[in-house]
Amino acid sequence: MRKKIITSAHGGGGTATKEIIDIIREYLGNPILDQLDDSALLSLDSKEIAFTTDSYVINPVIFPGGDIGKIAVCGTVNDLAMQGAKPRYISLSLILEEGLEFELLERIISSIAEAAEKADVQVVTGDTKVVEHGRAGGNLFINTAAIGQRYEGCDTRVKNAVVGELVIVTGTLGDHGITIINERENFNLKSDLQSDVAPLNTLAHEVLTVVPGIHCMRDPTRGGLAAALCDIAESSEVGVKIQENVIPVKKSVSAACALLGFDPLNIANEGKAVIVCTEDSADRVLEICRQNEFGRNAALIGKVVSEHPKIVVMETRQGGTRIVDMPRGENLPRIC
Amino acid sequence: MRKKIITSAHGGGGTATKEIIDIIREYLGNPILDQLDDSALLSLDSKEIAFTTDSYVINPVIFPGGDIGKIAVCGTVNDLAMQGAKPRYISLSLILEEGLEFELLERIISSIAEAAEKADVQVVTGDTKVVEHGRAGGNLFINTAAIGQRYEGCDTRVKNAVVGELVIVTGTLGDHGITIINERENFNLKSDLQSDVAPLNTLAHEVLTVVPGIHCMRDPTRGGLAAALCDIAESSEVGVKIQENVIPVKKSVSAACALLGFDPLNIANEGKAVIVCTEDSADRVLEICRQNEFGRNAALIGKVVSEHPKIVVMETRQGGTRIVDMPRGENLPRIC
Repeated sequence: MRKKIITSAHGGGGTATKEIIDIIREYLGNPILDQLDDSALLSLDSKEIAFTTDSYVINPVIFPGGDIGKIAVCGTVNDLAMQGAKPRYISLSLILEEGLEFELLERIISSIAEAAEKADVQVVTGDTKVVEHGRAGGNLFINTAAIGQRYEGCDTRVKNAVVGELVIVTGTLGDHGITIINERENFNLKSDLQSDVAPLNTLAHEVLTVVPGIHCMRDPTRGGLAAALCDIAESSEVGVKIQENVIPVKKSVSAACALLGFDPLNIANEGKAVIVCTEDSADRVLEICRQNEFGRNAALIGKVVSEHPKIVVMETRQGGTRIVDMPRGENLPRIC
Repeated sequence: MRKKIITSAHGGGGTATKEIIDIIREYLGNPILDQLDDSALLSLDSKEIAFTTDSYVINPVIFPGGDIGKIAVCGTVNDLAMQGAKPRYISLSLILEEGLEFELLERIISSIAEAAEKADVQVVTGDTKVVEHGRAGGNLFINTAAIGQRYEGCDTRVKNAVVGELVIVTGTLGDHGITIINERENFNLKSDLQSDVAPLNTLAHEVLTVVPGIHCMRDPTRGGLAAALCDIAESSEVGVKIQENVIPVKKSVSAACALLGFDPLNIANEGKAVIVCTEDSADRVLEICRQNEFGRNAALIGKVVSEHPKIVVMETRQGGTRIVDMPRGENLPRIC
C-alpha cells in the first residue's frame, strides 16, 4: 500500500489542511485548542508572566531518547522553568515538507502530546505550513512558543549570581549533543548514548518553592555548560571557578568526545540545569535534585568568585587551570 | 568586497550567534528584549489575553508591497486583532540558511522593526537557528508568536454570526496572493499589483470600541474570502449570501485571475478583515473603515441568512447563484 504523504495542498488552509488539524486534535485536543480560531483566548492566574519561543531544526528528527516533537516541548518549557515560571500554555507551529509521511508526522505529534502531558502544559494554538520537498531540512521544522506564570517574587536571571555562591549541575553533561552527532555522522559508536531531553519544570518548581533565595538558573543547551557559565559570569560580572574532576560526564560521552575531538563542556544538553545557590542551601538543592527523576546525578561543580570577573576558569584533572571560553561557533549544527 | 554571509557557526549559540543578536538589538532593542535571557518577563494589564503563532515561509522573501519581515509581524498581529485583542508582545524566531547575506537579513529585520512600530507591538524574545544552504526554503523562515490583551467582554469568534447580520470586507480582495504568484512565476504582468500586507489592529480597535456589539471578525488570509466565509457559516451554523458585483477586486487583480484561472475569492489577503455586524451598525462600520488608511475600499458584500445553513452562496454578476466552497488545497503554496 502506498503510504500517505504530505502534499502542497495540505498547506493551503482549506479542507486538506484540516486533515493535519484532525491529527493534531486527536492527540492534543483540549477545549481551548478545539475552538480552532486564529488565536487562543486565555484567562491567566496572574498578570506576571514569562514568554519564550524556540524553533527546532534538529537532524535526525528521531534519535535515541527522543525526537523533534519531544525536544520542541521540553526545550521551550525549560526556558520558562529556568526563569522561575510555571509553564502553562504552548503554541505549535509546523513547517512540513511535501513528501513527509503522515505516519512520521503522527509519531511526532504523539510524542508532543506525551511531552506536553509530562510537562503539564496545554497546546492551545498553532499553525501549519507546507514547503517543497527538501526545503525544511529534510523532514520538518517545529516552532513552539510558551507562556508561563511567574512564581511571585522569583527572579532567576543569569545576571544575579553573587560572589561566594556555589554552582550545581543537575546531571551528566553532553549526552544530547554527542548522541545526535553519533546518529547523524554514522560513527556507530557502540554504547549507551542517549539524549537527555526532558522537561525540567517539576525539578525547577521543587527547588524554587522549597529552597528560599535561589536567584540564578540556566539550562546549558546550545554551547553547553561553557556557554551557560560564560553567560552567568559575563552578566553577573563575577568570576566562576569549576573543577573538572567533579563535573559529571558519562563514560560513553567522554570516550566519544575524546575520539571525536569535542569538549564535553561545549556540547548541548536538553534536560539539565545549572543552579547557583548559597553555600548554606547547596546540600538541600542537591538532595531535591537527586530525588527528582531528571536530577539523579546532580553535582556541585564550582563556585562564584571575585577573582577574574567575567571569566570562567577550570581546575583541570591534572591540577592545572584553564580558561573556559564562550564557544565561538558550533561543531554541531542542527542540534536542537 | 566579499559580502558577509551567514555560516553554520552563527547557529551555535556562541559568539558568532551574538553577531546576529547585535543586528536584532540594533533595530528591535527595548528594555525587555535587551535582557537577552531565555524568556521575557512581562507584566500584563489584565489576565485576559489572546495568544497566537504563525510561521512564514513566503517565496519570494521580498515582493511589491512588503517582505517576509513585514508579513511576519502583520499576519500575527492581525490574528490577535481579529479576536478582539490589542497586540502587545511578539516573539521572533529565525531559521536562516547558510549563505544568506547579512545585508538581506538586515533589510528584513529593519522591516520587522518598522512593522512592529506601526502595529504598536514590542519584540520581547526570540531565537535564531541556522540550517544548510537551501534547507530553509532558499533564504529564511520566520516564526512569530504574540500575546494580546483582550478588550473586556469582547468576543469576535467565527462561531458568533447571527441570521440577519450583514457582511463587510475592509477592501479589495486577492491583492497579496496574485502579487506573489506573479513575482514567483515571472508572469511579468505589467500592472500595479501590490501586496496588501498591513497591520489591522488600529482598524479593529476603532471598530470594536466605537460600534457596540460586533461579535464576529476574521481576516481572509490563506484560502481567501471563500475560506473565511465558509468558516463563519460552518462554525455559526448559518447561511451566508454574497453578491459578486459588489465585492471589491482591483481591475489588475481580476484581470490576472482571469488570465491565470484563479478565483479572487480563493486568493490570500494579508491586510483585510471580514466584519459581521447588525444592519443598524453597518453604515457606522463602513464609515470607520473608510477613514482608516487600511479600509478605504470597505464594502458591504452580503448577509447572514437562515436558508442553506453552513453554506455560502454567491449571486453572480450574470444573475445566477453558485455555491462558494471551502478551497480544497491551494494553487499557491508558500504564499505567507
